Amino acid sequence: MKLIGVDLGGTTFSVGLVSEDGKILKKVTRDTLVENGKEDVIRRIAEAILEVADGEETPYVGIGSPGSIDRENGIVRFSPNFPDWHNVPLTDELAKRTGKKVFLENDANAFVLGEKWFGAGRGYDHIVALTLGTGIGGGVVTHGHLLTGRDGIGAELGHVVVEPNGPMCNCGTRGCLEAVSSATAIRRFLREGYKKYHDSLVYKLAGSPEKADAKHLFDAARQGDRFALMIRDRVVDALARAVAGYIHIFNPEIVIIGGGISRAGEILFGPLREKVVDYIMPSFVGTYEIVASPLVEDAGILGAASIIKERIGG
Amino acid sequence: MKLIGVDLGGTTFSVGLVSEDGKILKKVTRDTLVENGKEDVIRRIAEAILEVADGEETPYVGIGSPGSIDRENGIVRFSPNFPDWHNVPLTDELAKRTGKKVFLENDANAFVLGEKWFGAGRGYDHIVALTLGTGIGGGVVTHGHLLTGRDGIGAELGHVVVEPNGPMCNCGTRGCLEAVSSATAIRRFLREGYKKYHDSLVYKLAGSPEKADAKHLFDAARQGDRFALMIRDRVVDALARAVAGYIHIFNPEIVIIGGGISRAGEILFGPLREKVVDYIMPSFVGTYEIVASPLVEDAGILGAASIIKERIGG
Repeated sequence: MKLIGVDLGGTTFSVGLVSEDGKILKKVTRDTLVENGKEDVIRRIAEAILEVADGEETPYVGIGSPGSIDRENGIVRFSPNFPDWHNVPLTDELAKRTGKKVFLENDANAFVLGEKWFGAGRGYDHIVALTLGTGIGGGVVTHGHLLTGRDGIGAELGHVVVEPNGPMCNCGTRGCLEAVSSATAIRRFLREGYKKYHDSLVYKLAGSPEKADAKHLFDAARQGDRFALMIRDRVVDALARAVAGYIHIFNPEIVIIGGGISRAGEILFGPLREKVVDYIMPSFVGTYEIVASPLVEDAGILGAASIIKERIGG
Repeated sequence: MKLIGVDLGGTTFSVGLVSEDGKILKKVTRDTLVENGKEDVIRRIAEAILEVADGEETPYVGIGSPGSIDRENGIVRFSPNFPDWHNVPLTDELAKRTGKKVFLENDANAFVLGEKWFGAGRGYDHIVALTLGTGIGGGVVTHGHLLTGRDGIGAELGHVVVEPNGPMCNCGTRGCLEAVSSATAIRRFLREGYKKYHDSLVYKLAGSPEKADAKHLFDAARQGDRFALMIRDRVVDALARAVAGYIHIFNPEIVIIGGGISRAGEILFGPLREKVVDYIMPSFVGTYEIVASPLVEDAGILGAASIIKERIGG
């Protein structure tokens, strides 16, 4: 049996045909065109599913969506990326149009499931996963099971406070991990830093303070730029406090970090691993690994496909 | 069937005979006398078990112990309270002496189980519990199951960083919840505050800065003492950030706070509930309760007895 995974994003969506062992056999990516309305988006997702499934036995579809999800009933309650989506019965709508059984999960939960079934989490029962991108998403597998909480809205690992009275977060609280260590936070630090540090390499690499982003930051840090290293340290220190907290809470075998920022490599992971040791109790030293997600650009589709594995059993 | 619960502490231990519905029918409390060596302590616990069990059908014993526990094998790996205890096979030793099947759990895990089976957590599948005492312990039930992690050392909820670069914690990190919101931290704040705030009501109630503790703090705060309210606010603010984090992570039905400090009542819980709302995302508002443990001084024995319920099924 092959799996179909749908990675639904605010700008594009991707649909992939995935083998049982996590290879992407076929893939289409389309513009989401949220502005055309939800009916149109759903219709085009269904078309892409049928296109990708052509001729294959694919009774199941998994879909990972941003926003607040009713996972039991397959409903997107609301999503900042889709202003006109309120309580959309996404799985029913897609099932009607494709004849397949559809499972829905929050995209960060799908990410940790993808790692569990096809990525760095294979063989582990205790996994903490963070996606560092525009926002910071979290997913947790504990004692072999996805942690979702009473209403399915748990594992919001990006919204623990790491800098009391720190920068304002989109969620309305100050100093959340997302407000310090996300790509958005880094762009804001770089814009704000220009006045004082305008001769930093970051701005030369970026061309202008408005264009400066996480990639420029880590590239400049790798070359020893003082300002870039200062921002890098702030981002890593906050992340290390959060990760150390998750290690204390979940006693995981592995902490997997994905999203765009995870591609920074050792300039991020080196000091992160060191700092986490500073922040944990001695009894936790040596109990975990911290790794970058190996799934990279396939994480979305593989995560979505793995929802099927999780729901029907591997 | 009746249950036997053993609450093992560094100063005293208590053994109780507990009914299926969580009433303590008989109870003995003895000095632990750690200085007499572990053989003697174990022998006297076994005697107390047999004394309490006299004439009753009690095939099982649950024991809650501080320190690092190998819950699967019933071994106390080490415990700060018992300097000569290293990898002590406590359940085997007690089983040999009593003829009963013995289950061992970390005391903070026993606390959340006690709440689940006999306290404020009855009927809930998602419970976060904190004990605010000399240290801060944590226990979590998520999706109906006790969270222990890979090595059984998870749910260390007292060791998340709430004040970066804050007071040094016993665990070696700065600014842990335990270093700000435990009874020990409060005593330290009160000693340190004497120089500047020596006319505070706290010190009048206590008699001397050395004697000032959490009870004096909350009593003075209730009477509007400015210094006491300042310390209360710091303690509550740190606790609120941690609790908000746990709500984001576990999406629990209930957060239960026990230990000596939980007896402070509204002077603690009123501002705590308000502050937590400030720190959580809007989608979590109204999803949880925050309550004081109703088990009070019986929490230790009932928690220990509930380990039996958890292991053999209620």
